[in-house]
Amino acid sequence: MKKTTEKPSLRISLAQINCAVGDLAGNAARILEYAEWAGRQEADVVVFPELSLPGYPPEDLVMRRHFQDDTRRALTELAKKMPAGPPALVGFTETAGTDLHNAAAVLFGGKIRAVYRKQRLPNYGVFDEKRYFAPGKELIFLKIRGVCAGITLCEDVWADDGPAPALAKQGAQVILNLSASPYHAGKQSLRRRTIGEVVKKCGRPLVYCNMVGGQDELVFDGGSMAMDAHGRIVADAPQFEECLLTADIPVPPATRFPKNIVPLSPAPAGTKIPIEPPPSAAPLSELDEIYSALVLGTRDYVKKNGFKKAVLGLSGGIDSSLVACVAVDALGKENVIGVTMPSRFNSPETRSDAEILSRNLGIGFHSVPIETVTEEFLKVLRPVFGDRPRDLAEENLQARVRGTLLMALSNKFGWMVLTTGNKSEVSVGYSTLYGDTAGGFAVIKDIPKTLVYRLARRRNEKAGRQLIPQSVFDRPPTAELRPNQTDQDSLPPYELLDNIIRLYVEEDKGLGEIVKSGVGSEIAAKVLRLVDASEYKRRQAPPGVKITPKAFGRDRRMPITNRYRPGQPN
Amino acid sequence: MKKTTEKPSLRISLAQINCAVGDLAGNAARILEYAEWAGRQEADVVVFPELSLPGYPPEDLVMRRHFQDDTRRALTELAKKMPAGPPALVGFTETAGTDLHNAAAVLFGGKIRAVYRKQRLPNYGVFDEKRYFAPGKELIFLKIRGVCAGITLCEDVWADDGPAPALAKQGAQVILNLSASPYHAGKQSLRRRTIGEVVKKCGRPLVYCNMVGGQDELVFDGGSMAMDAHGRIVADAPQFEECLLTADIPVPPATRFPKNIVPLSPAPAGTKIPIEPPPSAAPLSELDEIYSALVLGTRDYVKKNGFKKAVLGLSGGIDSSLVACVAVDALGKENVIGVTMPSRFNSPETRSDAEILSRNLGIGFHSVPIETVTEEFLKVLRPVFGDRPRDLAEENLQARVRGTLLMALSNKFGWMVLTTGNKSEVSVGYSTLYGDTAGGFAVIKDIPKTLVYRLARRRNEKAGRQLIPQSVFDRPPTAELRPNQTDQDSLPPYELLDNIIRLYVEEDKGLGEIVKSGVGSEIAAKVLRLVDASEYKRRQAPPGVKITPKAFGRDRRMPITNRYRPGQPN
Repeated sequence: MKKTTEKPSLRISLAQINCAVGDLAGNAARILEYAEWAGRQEADVVVFPELSLPGYPPEDLVMRRHFQDDTRRALTELAKKMPAGPPALVGFTETAGTDLHNAAAVLFGGKIRAVYRKQRLPNYGVFDEKRYFAPGKELIFLKIRGVCAGITLCEDVWADDGPAPALAKQGAQVILNLSASPYHAGKQSLRRRTIGEVVKKCGRPLVYCNMVGGQDELVFDGGSMAMDAHGRIVADAPQFEECLLTADIPVPPATRFPKNIVPLSPAPAGTKIPIEPPPSAAPLSELDEIYSALVLGTRDYVKKNGFKKAVLGLSGGIDSSLVACVAVDALGKENVIGVTMPSRFNSPETRSDAEILSRNLGIGFHSVPIETVTEEFLKVLRPVFGDRPRDLAEENLQARVRGTLLMALSNKFGWMVLTTGNKSEVSVGYSTLYGDTAGGFAVIKDIPKTLVYRLARRRNEKAGRQLIPQSVFDRPPTAELRPNQTDQDSLPPYELLDNIIRLYVEEDKGLGEIVKSGVGSEIAAKVLRLVDASEYKRRQAPPGVKITPKAFGRDRRMPITNRYRPGQPN
Repeated sequence: MKKTTEKPSLRISLAQINCAVGDLAGNAARILEYAEWAGRQEADVVVFPELSLPGYPPEDLVMRRHFQDDTRRALTELAKKMPAGPPALVGFTETAGTDLHNAAAVLFGGKIRAVYRKQRLPNYGVFDEKRYFAPGKELIFLKIRGVCAGITLCEDVWADDGPAPALAKQGAQVILNLSASPYHAGKQSLRRRTIGEVVKKCGRPLVYCNMVGGQDELVFDGGSMAMDAHGRIVADAPQFEECLLTADIPVPPATRFPKNIVPLSPAPAGTKIPIEPPPSAAPLSELDEIYSALVLGTRDYVKKNGFKKAVLGLSGGIDSSLVACVAVDALGKENVIGVTMPSRFNSPETRSDAEILSRNLGIGFHSVPIETVTEEFLKVLRPVFGDRPRDLAEENLQARVRGTLLMALSNKFGWMVLTTGNKSEVSVGYSTLYGDTAGGFAVIKDIPKTLVYRLARRRNEKAGRQLIPQSVFDRPPTAELRPNQTDQDSLPPYELLDNIIRLYVEEDKGLGEIVKSGVGSEIAAKVLRLVDASEYKRRQAPPGVKITPKAFGRDRRMPITNRYRPGQPN
């Protein structure tokens, strides 16, 4: 046995756990389990994610008095049950008079020894914390094995004027951070930069424990880390999976101990068992990271809502092919059912590609033709329709027959319907409400079409074979709702469309700026108009994983009734 | 001609106008029109609602830089175009560096003479103003015809620590308030009490200009008023309609003029034309107020979204009968189409009641039977369903066939589909997603079933005849999706159900408190469970008018994935 280093250091466990919103008992059990594990690793302190006890984000649930009371009871119970190991920092909501705080409890020796209240409350993007919480004002210091540690919660280290420098100045030798930081593409490198800047500002090591798991539209991707006082990563956890990351974190020598420091564990009697420096998580490529987010988001939405199996319509196109792959990776092939629902407008090629894909993936497969049902609909509608020419009504009808069939299967067998619309379609409303948008979870609603192709190609590459048949990639995209239809009859080429959508939806650019960037003004104006006019469809669409920095949904709250026309005389 | 009173007074016009979100040009035109009207009435000042230029609530639209720029341009234009009449207070969003303010511009003499920034930002209930706006810090005083007036914006007079007392202390003889205060049942009397308390605190008269009109789920009900320094209503405007309310408001004598006061109109040369004290708006009864809110909310949603006509399914039940009446009152009978879609489970009585109602209302009427389409669905599903017994899948299928038929009519003729589900059903999920929930606007989604009956009775009473046939009131409520079905097969009696829903949804009571109030614990627990488990359906439902103090939607933001079970071991 090797002795631990002579320089001052702290053995810290970061418990990157998957919490479920509202599951006080389940989350408490998970916390206990990881606390015991940290104890076996002889950790000096174990840090859990922000709001780990109630789950994050609990939304208006936290405003209910009975939920607040139950949370408090659950915390008190948990404190009593905690093993006689290291102090644990657990996120919870604290009721203080008429105020509510996003707080971290320090559990040790069967008691709640201290409570830190989050000081910086995010109220932008997907966050509404000022709706719920009052900001805390007090800094909390813990004395752990002779080391002074300061507590922060998530946004506290993201805000420019957060409390970390003050903690350092008043004696903290290490900054602990409990987080629930949702994923978007590229977030992990942004986190490293942000934490790096805080460390630079404070001259103190910072340990960052993030939540992992899906909650409605959000995926928490983990990626917890410990950074030393020089900004070097000492240890880091993988993204998208639970783990206990334990590492010996070197800390600078003590300067002073604040008067109000909370004394916890004393210096240890003997030496500690050595722990292996955990292998650094290899950073995921952009595509693998996004794909993993889709898988985790889908798995957790389906399972945390009590479903086991999922069904989806397979059109033989790239979108449903990708969603089928994600579903299989999320739920297992035995839990995925593909259904092809051909009409006269579906080519033999797309029908056979749907079947080949199902065979390649090894999933259940059904074919339910929609021709006769559609005809019967048109028959009963004829007295009202009269001899009006075929138009969008007949196209949407086919999509709604398919949606109704999938929902019938869902109701009969208890399968969740996964929808297959991508962000390009969702943006411009190229979809049928109650048709292809009908379902429980919209797996790729935040994935633009061009990215759908890249993810699908990457999935084949990882499989080492044509899981998705090559012809699916080669065929021009089509909704197959009328003869010889292709998406580009109605929409600009996807490269161009996705570019406009990125500028307008994600970067909030106006028509003028978009045109200046080189997009034709007529096409840009048309796309912007379509995006605005489709808000009502998006409001009635199922949730799906947030992937981009600005997803539709809680990230982008636009009025439905909206007469503003960007770039037009207003 | 009678001279105006010798005591100091100010002639104030409150322009209670209907603004549309994003319609900068349209709202500006409306403001001009009312400013001219106020000029003809020789008003000393005209007050418009909060955010009258961009409309309220503009949500994330205000965060777009190009919208901010367009708003500023529109305001500058408007200032130039304003008639040479009284100063006008117009609500707009002000960009100041990286901050955005909810602000009131004082337009006079072709210029923006002053800007007041809202100090208290509501961030609860349906409000998210801290997401958008930074609070203002400065008090603004206007010198109008020798009288010192102080400006406030909406929440400024609702918050306990608002700026009104400081305005009074520093010299304001009258408090002007620009508001966009959404309706809920009983709000108007709450407003009078609130304003009365502010007046009492300040000892100053307060004039309150509220917006009118529907915006997505919100209805602004107007009810603008002027209260004198003794808390008496000097003038008040009707609810639910546009109006210009002009009145001579007596003000206390000047005490001091703050140094930074903005000098505006000088004392008038001669006497003013007399104005009649406007007749006080007779307060609406509870039922008439609610009904008016439904009518205005429906009219504005349909029309502001570019629709003229609406279609709805008529089941012969009370819900669709009430919605048909609202639709006729909102859009005119020539713009409403009722469709009955009978199956084998519909009794001859309900079918004939639907037809009688249509005749009574004088609306369009079609009958489209669903039997053959449903059968065809079951035929193509048989290979997958096998010989499983009939269950919810077959019931929901019928509702979805109906939803699909209505949407086909919507697509073919450009009619908006109105859905007919009430709050009791919406609460417990007694509805079929993509079936009876399919449509553009959910007129009575916030009206509990017991209130549906009361409103329907009152509508008949006002008509002076059985617009809705008596048998519709007498028949036990039924979804008619299987033989001899009634709602009470699945649900507790509506009196009981609505009581539990009020306690749980509107008052946030827990299971313990609900049981203590006298509800059986088994039934209460079942209802609570149904409410929680139906969140996914509500997320995909169309918007509808907020009527109760806490409606589903932006008022109550619950997670879909939610493992909390009130009153159970958690």
